[in-house]
Amino acid sequence: MRQAGRSLPEFRALRERHSFAELVASAELTAEVTLQPVRRLGVDAAILFSDIVTPLAAIGIDVRITSGVGPVFDEPFRSERDLDRIRPLDPDTDLAPVLAAVRILKAELDVPLIGFAGAPFTVASYFVEGGPSRDYARTKALMLGEPALWHRLLERLGDLTIASLRAQVGAGAAAVQVFDSWAGTLHPDHYAAHVLPASTRVFTALADLGVPRIHFGVTTGELLGHMAAAGADVVGVDWRVPLDLAWARIGDHAVQGNLDPAVLGAPWDVVAAEADAVLAAAGGRPGHVFNLGHGVLPDTDPDVLRRLVDHVHARTT
Amino acid sequence: MRQAGRSLPEFRALRERHSFAELVASAELTAEVTLQPVRRLGVDAAILFSDIVTPLAAIGIDVRITSGVGPVFDEPFRSERDLDRIRPLDPDTDLAPVLAAVRILKAELDVPLIGFAGAPFTVASYFVEGGPSRDYARTKALMLGEPALWHRLLERLGDLTIASLRAQVGAGAAAVQVFDSWAGTLHPDHYAAHVLPASTRVFTALADLGVPRIHFGVTTGELLGHMAAAGADVVGVDWRVPLDLAWARIGDHAVQGNLDPAVLGAPWDVVAAEADAVLAAAGGRPGHVFNLGHGVLPDTDPDVLRRLVDHVHARTT
Repeated sequence: MRQAGRSLPEFRALRERHSFAELVASAELTAEVTLQPVRRLGVDAAILFSDIVTPLAAIGIDVRITSGVGPVFDEPFRSERDLDRIRPLDPDTDLAPVLAAVRILKAELDVPLIGFAGAPFTVASYFVEGGPSRDYARTKALMLGEPALWHRLLERLGDLTIASLRAQVGAGAAAVQVFDSWAGTLHPDHYAAHVLPASTRVFTALADLGVPRIHFGVTTGELLGHMAAAGADVVGVDWRVPLDLAWARIGDHAVQGNLDPAVLGAPWDVVAAEADAVLAAAGGRPGHVFNLGHGVLPDTDPDVLRRLVDHVHARTT
Repeated sequence: MRQAGRSLPEFRALRERHSFAELVASAELTAEVTLQPVRRLGVDAAILFSDIVTPLAAIGIDVRITSGVGPVFDEPFRSERDLDRIRPLDPDTDLAPVLAAVRILKAELDVPLIGFAGAPFTVASYFVEGGPSRDYARTKALMLGEPALWHRLLERLGDLTIASLRAQVGAGAAAVQVFDSWAGTLHPDHYAAHVLPASTRVFTALADLGVPRIHFGVTTGELLGHMAAAGADVVGVDWRVPLDLAWARIGDHAVQGNLDPAVLGAPWDVVAAEADAVLAAAGGRPGHVFNLGHGVLPDTDPDVLRRLVDHVHARTT
């Protein structure tokens, strides 16, 4: 139920008074926004409200979240010189409001809090493109044309991810989710050569924390095996891939997913039938975490979300 | 090499003087724009310059191509009443400039001309959403919530596709390509229940023409088997799916693809190596049509496209 907030009137009311940057910069507002969907929907976990580029902003790189667009960098990553702009993250100072929010949430939540960070590829894609992209042409040109520089970039970005998630767990997060939202744009051979090493390094560096590590992306059908191999305990599956096929690729890992979020705009009996189809495809396996296959769409009726949560609870308990 | 035009200076020069609608409405301009990439790139076939919504515009539905956006409908498809707006297509009158362009091209081209039309799902998605979409929420709500109306809509749209492609072949096209560009947003079970029958009907109605029928989409990894079963002779594969995996899903059909178009922004030795990897994955099978996995990106250097065509010719002849 990622991005459930944007469908909620209470979140929209807050957004009218505060910019995205203000929400992320305030521990109290971050905690409030994280709590909103839990209160209203009755989900079994909360996910920290944050952004993929938050650690980059925290170390002083100029990036702003533009409404309706996403993160925008005035000075994108272009060459080796830009590596020096990525200094190490000191979470206690750089992410002070984020960690304070985690502590508030740890005290207030009755359900586990999932920590949030971007995977090296997806963070790099924003930094290299200068913002969201449809085709990731600059990112791929750098990755394939200057692989040594690319690997150094992903290692530095991976350090930010590791430091951020270790600190979030230290402050009370009970699981971590690594968002490689756009890795699905890659051919599996490119992923294996140019992304998997950096993501494996991230998951390995989180192993001793002893919390579940979730690895998420969309259009990742052909990447699922690699995403599991990176060290994830749980692999997110988008709605395009039937769960039985996904499991065959993922092997002995848990799976999160994968109801098509667009289905929630259909009449309720259709939503219920589609949720049942996902549960049937999971076949009652204990390693299934029911979820949407991607984030909640902004026009989704919150009452349908609540009804879906209740429906799945009734079917599975 | 679909959409190669937008990377060519000679196409951009024409676009400065003519709107997209003017290009499609003029047989001479359509023919010229179709010929441009063939002249410059030396490809083995031409594809008719057209748009997915051309047949809808031809029967009088108000749709305009907005630069940088795509097709926009002021009055999208909303209910059963809108079915009556989709009257049968009379190609000789409604598509007169398109068919005149095909005749010009038949006379001028040294390579086969591929006819162009949208598949029922993708045409419906534009008409139902009112334009391009990221999530196809309205389309899916209609498809799942009102399946009987949806099937009637796809049948009418399929009639337009059939009439348009039959007329294009009658005027001289030597193959047809059916673009289901956005079907990859669907779970395979939804595709099988709500799209496959209409697409099968289209391919079946083209069988007696005796020309190769190509079926194309992106993010269709899990749909490839269905797309072959619809009756295609050739199935397009996007760059995310290794060709050997694609073939295992497609079975005994030819395959078109699947170099990542974004790779063309990398240095030439990378482009050559990536093209070689696609050829190696195809393993010299006679049923492989080398192509990009999607359209040419606008910033692509035409010289790289030409060099790629020459490179593939040198490797395969």
